[in-house]
Parts: sequence; structure tokens; C-alpha cells
Amino acid sequence: MAVGDYPFPHMHPVQGVKLTAVSAGIKKVGRRDVVLFELAEGSSVAGVFTKNAFCAAPVTLCKDHLSKAPIRYLLINSGNANACTGEQGLLDAKATCAAIAELTGVTPEQVLPFSTGVIGEPLPVQKITAVIPEALEKVNIDGWDDAGAGIMTTDTRPKGFSQQFEYQGKTITVNGISKGAGMIKPNMATMLGYIATDAKIAQPLLQALAHEAADKSFNRITIDGDTSTNDSCILIATGQIDLPEVTEPKGELYAKLREVIFAAHIHLAKSIVSDGEGATKFVTVAVSGGATRDECLDVAYAVAHSPLIKTALFASDPNWGRIVAAIGYAGVADLDATKVRVHLNDTLIVEHGGRAKSYTEEQGQAVMKQAEIAININLGRGDVAETVWTTDLSYEYVRINADYRS
Amino acid sequence: MAVGDYPFPHMHPVQGVKLTAVSAGIKKVGRRDVVLFELAEGSSVAGVFTKNAFCAAPVTLCKDHLSKAPIRYLLINSGNANACTGEQGLLDAKATCAAIAELTGVTPEQVLPFSTGVIGEPLPVQKITAVIPEALEKVNIDGWDDAGAGIMTTDTRPKGFSQQFEYQGKTITVNGISKGAGMIKPNMATMLGYIATDAKIAQPLLQALAHEAADKSFNRITIDGDTSTNDSCILIATGQIDLPEVTEPKGELYAKLREVIFAAHIHLAKSIVSDGEGATKFVTVAVSGGATRDECLDVAYAVAHSPLIKTALFASDPNWGRIVAAIGYAGVADLDATKVRVHLNDTLIVEHGGRAKSYTEEQGQAVMKQAEIAININLGRGDVAETVWTTDLSYEYVRINADYRS
Repeated sequence: MAVGDYPFPHMHPVQGVKLTAVSAGIKKVGRRDVVLFELAEGSSVAGVFTKNAFCAAPVTLCKDHLSKAPIRYLLINSGNANACTGEQGLLDAKATCAAIAELTGVTPEQVLPFSTGVIGEPLPVQKITAVIPEALEKVNIDGWDDAGAGIMTTDTRPKGFSQQFEYQGKTITVNGISKGAGMIKPNMATMLGYIATDAKIAQPLLQALAHEAADKSFNRITIDGDTSTNDSCILIATGQIDLPEVTEPKGELYAKLREVIFAAHIHLAKSIVSDGEGATKFVTVAVSGGATRDECLDVAYAVAHSPLIKTALFASDPNWGRIVAAIGYAGVADLDATKVRVHLNDTLIVEHGGRAKSYTEEQGQAVMKQAEIAININLGRGDVAETVWTTDLSYEYVRINADYRS
Repeated sequence: MAVGDYPFPHMHPVQGVKLTAVSAGIKKVGRRDVVLFELAEGSSVAGVFTKNAFCAAPVTLCKDHLSKAPIRYLLINSGNANACTGEQGLLDAKATCAAIAELTGVTPEQVLPFSTGVIGEPLPVQKITAVIPEALEKVNIDGWDDAGAGIMTTDTRPKGFSQQFEYQGKTITVNGISKGAGMIKPNMATMLGYIATDAKIAQPLLQALAHEAADKSFNRITIDGDTSTNDSCILIATGQIDLPEVTEPKGELYAKLREVIFAAHIHLAKSIVSDGEGATKFVTVAVSGGATRDECLDVAYAVAHSPLIKTALFASDPNWGRIVAAIGYAGVADLDATKVRVHLNDTLIVEHGGRAKSYTEEQGQAVMKQAEIAININLGRGDVAETVWTTDLSYEYVRINADYRS
């Protein structure tokens, strides 16, 4: 089940990025489960990773490798998360990097490993290394579709973004793919995201952009409130287009790159929500009028995580009382309930501490029947605003997650 | 649906407490929905209430009345929460108190009002006041069964506790009833609890006991993480047994009263969890080895609120990876994942940052098949321990909450 209109787009090539997906037999036979990126020499690579204390072995290794050597390969397997696998997990992830190094002449530190899937099972290293020669042979600049499909787990559809713009007569491309459908929450989740441009951006600036963009996109989506051990988002700038390197956060090219890179992150993040496990609604929770960013996010997440609100959304029931209750328990100090205003899309539903006089149940139901719903909350105490995106909670969510391993 | 063995007990009378339940037609015709407690003169009454910023009108009034006059009546209606009803809600709640005052000669401030049910609908004051004469006529010392049933909303069964003990040749009784099945979370929820003893306890001490007991019981249960606007827990000491008043937290009688009053709170709280909406499992999350109380609770609630863990529990799937992931994202600073140990009941499942070597899937499944499951987590960094109780997340939970108003 999925909601909203997020088709996989036509993917333009990104100069300096070759990629492919092959089948190693980790997932069901015949499904592609190993993806390889080959990056041109001179590429800058930045990463943002899960904050989970039980972060998976590949995450530990990615952070280490990013600090050491220029990255040339990204190796991603789906079907097995190599998480909570202790010391052996680290050795296993290293072995896959070493296998690429051996065949290509780069060092193992020039390879970033990623895994997504079941937690706590040993990584099937042999299966992965066995298909690396095939993957190295197959990588090509038109491999984005295959890669988008190859990183999926419980996703019902691949997620992609591709946009080009002109600058001083040169065409610059920004592409991205992502995966994730459950266990999605701030500070990332079982989500993987890969965004690449062929512009040239200095690594420190690229890292700053990666953090900033993830914070407004992948860190603002939530399906079930759970954060995974494996979340990783990688931003690549190959520098293959003949333009000066962007080294500082200013100027026209920087502004345009930032705009499109942000758009890529937000589109990929929203694509994940739209494919949320069992989702029948795409829900935007926009909190404004807050005194601080934290209190806006506290309220937004209280609403976005409430199973009572999520089941009401599933039922298309404009149960505004549950929304109000969630705002009330979000923990905002000295919240004046009489100043809070809540709109469902453009329909005012709550003001003066209760149901708005103008509101009718019919209005609420008209909004709730739609597949995309905005819950707009004004706290009436400041100028700060924050937005998060989430889904409803359906029978299907329970079915998917009760059956995942069986 | 309900889980575990929490039958409604034989309720001994509490000297000085008369009560009954009558039908006012707020819920379905014929169902009892108004409960009245009449307390003997000289009773001490203490209360603990929701922290929700949108607290309901009756909660506001309860707090006010408790600070003003000795309480003689408790008036509870189910079917309508009188929450988010603004100024009119307060006037309505006051009107019900006034109606009792007029018929009995007490002041309106000597009446505590409580409401539970749908949020945001005007309180049907006329229906309630119309049945007050009948209720006043019917109150009797054996009305606990009726009252237990009368305060139910989505509960599938009434919840009660009754225990007696001897002290210096006198029999002291501690009784309690509670309601609540969803929207249950720390800092209370749509839960109401009434605990009464015929011992004599000074009000300040009674208030301290009420806070302490609620904190270890009703504030440690969670079904869906939502906190309601109406939660209230009342502790009554009628003083009708001819024994000296307990005024200080010491001595044999105090210790025994505290023990039984705590037992009443914990039993009633666990009864609520066992009747959690759609519950098929009763789950104890016990966190030990913490450095602080807060971090133990953060971990316990991260686990208890995780929809991924709750759906795995529903599926009887020992998906320990999800438990580990939740511990990891609970936000404990500098958590050393390699020191964390997790048991399912007595079965060690996680140590050294991964699955325990001794663990087999069969062991985990054997535990998961049971109706009562303990997730025991040792953080390996201190001596503090905290326990919370919760349920699984089933299709039935979604059905109940998607259909509640329709």
C-alpha cells in the first residue's frame, strides 16, 4: 500500500557516477540485493548517519572510512542489516570492502559499506563477495533505475529524484534514490539515501550541506517513531562538470545547488513517507507560532506519533479531540490552551480551548477523506515554525510488521 | 479483548463510603453512566490529576474544590469527557456540583466532578442532574460492583481491588475501582481511579501517599502513549474505624496502610493494561542497571511505545533486534551497547552488542507464546531500576480506535 503520487522519475545520468544492482541471493532468489556505486576519482563524499547507540557495523565503518580516504565505491546490500552482530559484524563488513579493494586496486578505506534488512543475523559475506566481479563489470551511468530497486526492503516502490539545471552554459544534474518504509523517524531510520551531483563541491561544504539537508528532510519524517540502527544518507559531488569548485556557502551556483539538493532530500524523504508501511494517508504536521524550535518539534512529533490520531486518520475521522490532547501532553511549558488554533488543511477546527464555533463535522470529514492531509497547529506564543511528515496507522501496518520475519 | 487474569473481586464494604451507579442515557440506553460516591463527614480526600495542558473542565474544578472544602460527594459520568469545551464546560461541571449541593445541603465545593468519554461535546447537564435524586437515594455500602461497571467506557471488564487486614483487633478495608483501556500513558491517561480506606489518615499525608502511589502505578502504564485530558486518581480515607489518625509517614499502621494502598494502585493500573484496547499480551518492561531514574524510564518507554516491538509481540515474534534498536534510540548518553543485557522472562537474548550465543529462536518463541511477557533490560551502568507495563499492538487496537466515534 502506498499513498500519493511519487512515481520513479526518468533518471538523467550524473557524470562520474556509475552504478548497478545484481542478485546475490540474500533476499528471495532473483531479487536484486547488492548495489554498487563507482565514483570518479576526485569525488567529494559526505555522510549523515543514525544516532542509534546500537549502530550497525557498516555505519561504524562508513564513519571511519569517510575520515580517512577519498571514497571511490559504495557497496549496499539489502536483506540483511549486519546490525547487532558484534565484532564479527565489523569483520564481515570489512571483508566486503576488502573484496572490492582487491579487484580494483583502491584501498579498503575507499569503500563505504551499507546494509539494510533483518537485524542480528550474520552477514552472508560469501554471497556478497561472489557477485562483486559481476557488479564491477556491469556498473554504468544509466544504472539508477536498477540501483533504486536494488536497495528496497519492505518498500512497495523505488524512490527517485532527478533534476537538471543550466549554469554558465553547462548542464548540472542532481540525482537521488532512497529506501525506507517503516522504522522511520527523526534521526533517520531504516532509511538509506544517496544523492549525487556532477558539480564540484569542496568536502567540508558538502558535509555541511548534507547535515543541513538531512535535518530538514530525513530527520523530519516519522512513520512509527522507531529509529533504526542503519540509517545513512550520502551526498556525492563528482566534480566532473567543468566549472569552478564551490568552496563557500555563497554565490549563485551555491544557492542553486543548495536549492536542488534540498529539493532532492525533501522529495526522497516524502517519498518514503508516502510508501509508509500500510499508509493510506500522507500527513503533514505543521506547527507554527512556537517560542522555540524544540517545542514546535515536540508538538509536531506528539501529534505525528499518536496512535490515536493515526488510527483516526486511517478512519478518516476528524477526531480533533485527540489532536488537542496530543498538543496538550507534548510538554510545552506554560502552554496557554486558549491561544492554540488548529486547522485541518484550511478548515479551522480548534480555537479558544475548544471546537471552533464555525466548525462542522461535515467540513472535517471532507478534509479527512483526502489522501493528503495537513494538520496546521498555531501555538500562539512566538514566531518559530517546524514541519514533519507522517502517515496514518492501518490494519495493514500491523499485518506487515507482525509478519515481517515469518 | 483482554489478557491475563484480573477478575473483579468480591468487594468488602468500606465504612463511610456509600456509592451507586444509575443510567442517565449519556451512553447507550440502559447502560449505567452516572456514579455517585457519598463520603462520611470527616473523610480525607487526596487527588492526582492529568498534566495535559488541555485538561478537562472537571479536572480544573476538582483541583479547585480539593483546596477549598472537605469533600463529601464524588460525581462521575461516563460517555462524555467535558474536555475542550471551553468556558461552557466549566459552567456545566459546576452545575452538576450545584445540583448535588442543592439536594444535600453541602456546598458545591464539597463535590468533586469527573467525566470520561468523547472529547469536545457539550456535557448533557440535564440528563445528569435528572438522575441525581435517584442516585442519592440508592447509594449504599455495597455499591462497589455497580460503580465499577458504571465508570467504564471502552473497557471490556470492570476493574476492582479489595483487601482487608487486622490492626489492634480492628478490621481495616482498602478498596479501589478504576477504568481505562486506551489513551493510557505516563502521567495518567483516560483513566479514572478511586481508592478508599476506612482508616483515618491526615490529608497532607494522604496527598503524599496518593502522589507516591500514582507515580509507581498509573504513571507507569502505557498502552498507546497518549495522555488524556481527564485522568484523575482519588484516594479517600474515611476515618470510620476507631483507631488513631495516622499523621506521619512512620509506624506499623502507616507501613501496612501504605503497603495495601500501593498494592491497590498497582493492581488497578495493571488491570487497565490487561484490558488495553486490543491487548493480547501483558508486557512488563523492567529496566535495571541504569545510572538515573530518567534514563531507565526513557529506555522503558522507548521499548513500551515502539509500534515495531508491539506488533512483534502481537505476532509472538521474538524480534530482539527491534528491542535493541529501541534501547539504542532511547537517548541514553554514552550508552555502551556492549554492556547491555536483555532477557525475555529468564531467557538471555542479548549481550556483548548482539544476540547471546546461548540463545535460540525456539527459546524466544516459547516465551513469546505466553500471554504475560517480561522484557528485562540491564543497562550495565548503575543501580537504578524502573518498571513500566504495556500491551501489544493488534489489529483489534486499530479497529477499536478507527471505529470509536462511528
